[in-house]
Amino acid sequence: MKHLYFTPGPTELYFTVHEHLKNALKEDILSLSHRSDKFKVIYADTVASLRELLGLPEDWHIIFASSATEIWERAVQNLVEKNSFHFVSGAFSGKFAACAKRMGKNVVIEEAPFGQVPNPREAIIPLDSEFISFTHNETSSGACQPLEDFAWVRKNNPNALIAVDGISSLPVITLDYEQIDTAYFTVQKCFGLPAGLSVWLVNNRCLAKAEMLEKKGIVTGSYYSLAQRVELSQQNQTPETPNVLAIYLLGKVAKDMLMKGIDQIQRETNYKAAVMYHLLENTPGISPFIQNPEHRSKTTIVASCEKSTQIIEALKSKKLILGAGFGKYKEHHLRIANFPTHSKEQFEMLADKLSEQLDSDQ
Amino acid sequence: MKHLYFTPGPTELYFTVHEHLKNALKEDILSLSHRSDKFKVIYADTVASLRELLGLPEDWHIIFASSATEIWERAVQNLVEKNSFHFVSGAFSGKFAACAKRMGKNVVIEEAPFGQVPNPREAIIPLDSEFISFTHNETSSGACQPLEDFAWVRKNNPNALIAVDGISSLPVITLDYEQIDTAYFTVQKCFGLPAGLSVWLVNNRCLAKAEMLEKKGIVTGSYYSLAQRVELSQQNQTPETPNVLAIYLLGKVAKDMLMKGIDQIQRETNYKAAVMYHLLENTPGISPFIQNPEHRSKTTIVASCEKSTQIIEALKSKKLILGAGFGKYKEHHLRIANFPTHSKEQFEMLADKLSEQLDSDQ
Repeated sequence: MKHLYFTPGPTELYFTVHEHLKNALKEDILSLSHRSDKFKVIYADTVASLRELLGLPEDWHIIFASSATEIWERAVQNLVEKNSFHFVSGAFSGKFAACAKRMGKNVVIEEAPFGQVPNPREAIIPLDSEFISFTHNETSSGACQPLEDFAWVRKNNPNALIAVDGISSLPVITLDYEQIDTAYFTVQKCFGLPAGLSVWLVNNRCLAKAEMLEKKGIVTGSYYSLAQRVELSQQNQTPETPNVLAIYLLGKVAKDMLMKGIDQIQRETNYKAAVMYHLLENTPGISPFIQNPEHRSKTTIVASCEKSTQIIEALKSKKLILGAGFGKYKEHHLRIANFPTHSKEQFEMLADKLSEQLDSDQ
Repeated sequence: MKHLYFTPGPTELYFTVHEHLKNALKEDILSLSHRSDKFKVIYADTVASLRELLGLPEDWHIIFASSATEIWERAVQNLVEKNSFHFVSGAFSGKFAACAKRMGKNVVIEEAPFGQVPNPREAIIPLDSEFISFTHNETSSGACQPLEDFAWVRKNNPNALIAVDGISSLPVITLDYEQIDTAYFTVQKCFGLPAGLSVWLVNNRCLAKAEMLEKKGIVTGSYYSLAQRVELSQQNQTPETPNVLAIYLLGKVAKDMLMKGIDQIQRETNYKAAVMYHLLENTPGISPFIQNPEHRSKTTIVASCEKSTQIIEALKSKKLILGAGFGKYKEHHLRIANFPTHSKEQFEMLADKLSEQLDSDQ
């Protein structure tokens, strides 16, 4: 038996990736020119499948980048002239705020204690905020911002662009694209793909904002001007040489997910999350780190557990790889990915083995 | 027989890549966390092999990025406060100059007609130029700047940073790192790897310049500050989630090239280039596009040929894929990559088939 990765990304490959990789080699995708007609077809296919899978409206655009870190920077360049507001619930949402600060913007933060999510109803969002950033799923803590918060903030801040970090939750969640302006994710989380590609979704308000900044002479990046990228994307092209293989694999996995159905994927995600949280709530020696059940991530489940290092080692010897806690919680947390690639059976097996291990440690 | 790609990148995979990819799957490299110890070992191995292969001095640093287009932008951000000087010999060197302009810099260009290289001895380089950019091998035209030009410009402009685009020539050329400050390449050219990774080499003068700009409050990118990246690279880490698979494959192929020996690779490159230029000079209906033999690229051989579209089609039916001309030369040029992955036997076969085709067209 090979190892099975429940790490919160990079993670276990989506179960069809080996086959797609074999076909990619057979079809010479790794030698393919990114200016060829064949590449354009691959690009168009990937965008079409993603659009359908995400339920993305016609007037939204899909842009590829190399990492979420890159999208943070590109978003700040294209969408913020001066004032950026950030809901922060952990390391990754904090890094986005730090990015905006490094890019010279005025940054206002509403931060929740680690393990909680900020309450937008208690936040003072300055009226001149141009950009309001949410992190749906804070991968460092396992805290999950309720989807309805986006609409609430939108209603009260109609002039700001609302951004959603869906890094470890898209495409498993259904976003209401009427209530937000931009969202993004990376492929090594829920898509179960190798790292090296991220996806940025923007609407026409974002495009208009970027064009306005450019007209003012503000540098929006030499090859990440949104207007230029959107125009090229309509020709199934990127300015730079992209990660062709990753775009190919993403399209294939998106199609596989469509075949399965996003409803089915969501039902299975809910079931697997219920199995794991049930274990965490009913087993001595372990508990859910996120106290409020409504703020518990379904895709990145974080457990408090004083023996986490031993448990990770013990399960590794059984070929099951769990994530360690983030940063200073390395030895006090387990992080368990519940992504579409993880089957119900695999998750039940993980729960059994974890439960056995906890019992034997008592 | 499968297709054999002589396209100027992406190109035929280095002949060991299939095997390395199989091992990567077996070793779960595609699921590996970029914060794991195992990843750090891979990163360190790749850097060590590259360093040896390139003959890079101890005090130079290796930084990974996602494309050459990205390195252009990062170089301008970190190394240019105001004034950038660019030797331009075609589309790609021109794009770098355009990038610097988009980034708001004062750009001075010395441009040669397409098919030639600029003569630094005739160029007026402003005394306040902070950065002087050379393109060793202009992939759009096949023109090649003599290596000794770098030293000449360095001698006469000791205060400027000298940059060398080695995109389609490294590691096949031997750079004198005493005479330059930074160089870069992408892996889908001479390394025969899938697109999605580029490599940026910088010395400590670059580092000092970037630190000086940061001290002045100039934004050098939110996660591409050279100081931060060099510090992280010494811990075998990157700020963003990198293309783990590409870093792994690059290390493996660099090691394979070391086994073969860079001398042997250079000898074979010279031999294959001689075979092809001999054909171009002695066959009716085709000729070398670059008139001056001293400025002819060995790794990207460009031929003038009025029937290029038919020839590309005819050779494609024989499973040999050639590159079309760049831009408006699409139907008038052939571009033939002569990279380390192309064996002497494959190149001789290509020359035979090309010669047959040209004869039959007479």
